[in-house]
Amino acid sequence: MQPGVNNGQAAKTALVLGGTGVVGSAVLKELARREIKAAFGFHASGDKAKALAAEYGHTAFAIDLADAAATRAALDAQPTPDVVIHCAGVAASQSMIELDIATWQRAVAVNVQSALLVAQWLASRHGASEATSSRHLVLVGALDRTQSLPLPVGFAATQGALSAMTMALGHELGPKGVFVNLVALGVLDSGLSRELMSQRVKEYETFSALRRRGTADEAAKMITWLALENTYIQGKVLSVNGGI
Amino acid sequence: MQPGVNNGQAAKTALVLGGTGVVGSAVLKELARREIKAAFGFHASGDKAKALAAEYGHTAFAIDLADAAATRAALDAQPTPDVVIHCAGVAASQSMIELDIATWQRAVAVNVQSALLVAQWLASRHGASEATSSRHLVLVGALDRTQSLPLPVGFAATQGALSAMTMALGHELGPKGVFVNLVALGVLDSGLSRELMSQRVKEYETFSALRRRGTADEAAKMITWLALENTYIQGKVLSVNGGI
Amino acid sequence: MQPGVNNGQAAKTALVLGGTGVVGSAVLKELARREIKAAFGFHASGDKAKALAAEYGHTAFAIDLADAAATRAALDAQPTPDVVIHCAGVAASQSMIELDIATWQRAVAVNVQSALLVAQWLASRHGASEATSSRHLVLVGALDRTQSLPLPVGFAATQGALSAMTMALGHELGPKGVFVNLVALGVLDSGLSRELMSQRVKEYETFSALRRRGTADEAAKMITWLALENTYIQGKVLSVNGGI
Amino acid sequence: MQPGVNNGQAAKTALVLGGTGVVGSAVLKELARREIKAAFGFHASGDKAKALAAEYGHTAFAIDLADAAATRAALDAQPTPDVVIHCAGVAASQSMIELDIATWQRAVAVNVQSALLVAQWLASRHGASEATSSRHLVLVGALDRTQSLPLPVGFAATQGALSAMTMALGHELGPKGVFVNLVALGVLDSGLSRELMSQRVKEYETFSALRRRGTADEAAKMITWLALENTYIQGKVLSVNGGI
Repeated sequence: MQPGVNNGQAAKTALVLGGTGVVGSAVLKELARREIKAAFGFHASGDKAKALAAEYGHTAFAIDLADAAATRAALDAQPTPDVVIHCAGVAASQSMIELDIATWQRAVAVNVQSALLVAQWLASRHGASEATSSRHLVLVGALDRTQSLPLPVGFAATQGALSAMTMALGHELGPKGVFVNLVALGVLDSGLSRELMSQRVKEYETFSALRRRGTADEAAKMITWLALENTYIQGKVLSVNGGI
Repeated sequence: MQPGVNNGQAAKTALVLGGTGVVGSAVLKELARREIKAAFGFHASGDKAKALAAEYGHTAFAIDLADAAATRAALDAQPTPDVVIHCAGVAASQSMIELDIATWQRAVAVNVQSALLVAQWLASRHGASEATSSRHLVLVGALDRTQSLPLPVGFAATQGALSAMTMALGHELGPKGVFVNLVALGVLDSGLSRELMSQRVKEYETFSALRRRGTADEAAKMITWLALENTYIQGKVLSVNGGI
Repeated sequence: MQPGVNNGQAAKTALVLGGTGVVGSAVLKELARREIKAAFGFHASGDKAKALAAEYGHTAFAIDLADAAATRAALDAQPTPDVVIHCAGVAASQSMIELDIATWQRAVAVNVQSALLVAQWLASRHGASEATSSRHLVLVGALDRTQSLPLPVGFAATQGALSAMTMALGHELGPKGVFVNLVALGVLDSGLSRELMSQRVKEYETFSALRRRGTADEAAKMITWLALENTYIQGKVLSVNGGI
Repeated sequence: MQPGVNNGQAAKTALVLGGTGVVGSAVLKELARREIKAAFGFHASGDKAKALAAEYGHTAFAIDLADAAATRAALDAQPTPDVVIHCAGVAASQSMIELDIATWQRAVAVNVQSALLVAQWLASRHGASEATSSRHLVLVGALDRTQSLPLPVGFAATQGALSAMTMALGHELGPKGVFVNLVALGVLDSGLSRELMSQRVKEYETFSALRRRGTADEAAKMITWLALENTYIQGKVLSVNGGI
């Protein structure tokens, strides 16, 4: 048995949004390693979802996080999980002048609104379950305003919203037994980061204390620790970015 | 002539969004005291707008900040101002469970999206004007995540978005000669604050270092200073909240 | 074998400053559970140190963190550890008017200067060792300025210094393979917290999202995770405070 | 009469620490422009102090901010001012490994301890004066941990201490009618900045939104506004750094 593996305690269940992304896939792998079954959402990547489900023994479900009604309907069809991990996001990497309203609204819907909807859903399910144990919601974002390096305006706005929402959710849901925290990633060696900041990746690497991009596995390690081991961090942003 | 009054230099012009609100009205008064002509937007409060225009010699124009196309059209009909002050906002004060999607989307549109739209408009006009002097955009928000006291989730998200967007706008527009900063107010003795946090106002007062709510005039003083006197603060949030 | 226990990989060694405090003792227990040998410093509490050493199989050494030369001498007599955990601190809980210069200077020496000294020592040892693996320094502090509730002035200053020093150390030592991070605790149910804020503990509990004080074991869990599992968090403050 | 000049209201008086530095000199000039008499401290630069006193009609007094007893004695000999501006600081620009304990302790004493001492002195005088109007303490620091770019460790620690102390002082002294705020400067075109970060100045400029260093006059403008016009900002750090 490997270190960190869940052995003995009643098996927990997880729901993951954004499971086919690079961070989401690493989270699914880490959950499987800990012998935790996950239902995970996918949108465009049906084939990848099928492969991940088969590889790790999880189950996949379709969900369109850009659409509030569709998001709610897809969540309502799922059983109540112990932990929810939201690691879906879109980039909105245009300059301010070029940022069109449809891209902006889609970024708000996927990056922020869907996190609000899943929080509402989890809180409602938790309240109805007369649960005696806590539940956990872990949001996953990227460089927020605690970093002083430039970010695309539309993306930055969604990340600031996520950070502030995390604090507010933490205050509102803490007394009810639901943990909410945010892992703010930096520049990874794959995924959204590459799309987001082609010109900026080098700047970020230069100014990061560790002088390298992170891996999805490193992100997944902190995310799952928060979802499964944390008992006293609440409403916080944890920056996992190599020292930017 | 009073201290602080603009005398001698070429008269500047201002555009104010949210002019009929309590902060907006105080800003219009302070601009008039400094002999600066403003065009200000109004939505529901046509009569108040007419009265303010008459009292201070400003001009009013209708604008629906919840609607992107309407916002752009209304801005396009205005002349290019030297300074823009955005102090429009809605509360979204429900608890997380009660927050409906329409209220959420309206809060994002008015509090954040309209700030993005006016930044795009000002940057575009500034770029076309071959200006040699700078322009200023001052956004006005409220308690952001640097304060650890509870806030309604939907409102908190919009304020986090504004803060992060301010930093990103500052980086993108600074090199082009446009200043962007945010004044984050606390609990005022009138206006949005009262609606937002009926139950919380007492908590906030108790924990504020000055033990009192602020006035719209105090808010307006900092806002106009930033819009008219600032030359080196950029992309920043200035908290004017009595020490919360 | 319990979950989380270190099994298989080459055994790491630890050095702990403040080992006889409530957080330090919990860290020593958690390190023992992970089968990691620690040398830990003590000052006034020789008997408690002896008991802890016996219970967990660690070794104790005397060190006066208020004295720079004594601190260096005591560190120089120790072997080079893989991880250093600094959880020593004094309260300086007087009001500003009553804070005398000797108490202030002692708080700076123990809470901040000794952290600087141990960072210098670890970096120097690490540089001399031609190490291929990383070393970790975890500092432990308390409520910093990201929380808006009142703190005693002298104590607050030392915590602000620690936070900023963590970021600077992270930038300087990251490229050399030394991780530096800070765990900022809130109000625990024992130890420094009780001394620090007798009148304030209730306020802090009321405003914490979890509505309870933390335990030393909860603090130790995050601290040891950072010291032993972290590979990409650098120069950061992690707030573990129940949602204050 | 120029805009911003104090005309009509009862003349205020100021005490400035660090008056012979580049920022301090600009503050003295701005105070003179506003017809406010200042007593200002000097240490090594007696000739410059004499010249500044003569030029602006202020009075100079010797003070050694590295020595607590000497600082108190020098302050006790001064009349009670309406506003105090502390803009004294030393650099401590060595790398962590090279930072010696004497340089570190001197930086803490001048940059932080003397700010604590002057706050104690002002609060004590204010309490004894049965004042009905407020007094203001404005501290002046530099890049704190809200900026993610590298800083020398010793200097960073003093700036973090100043920031956190400002918040704590604001909470403690606000109810007594004393305002305390901090202006955090960035990289100026002269003075401490040049010494502090010879290698880093170019990096900072590159990442600043305004792409230029600031001037001492720009710093003085914000500092004096806070000291003389502010009525509702309390316990805050205002970053005036060109968008770093």
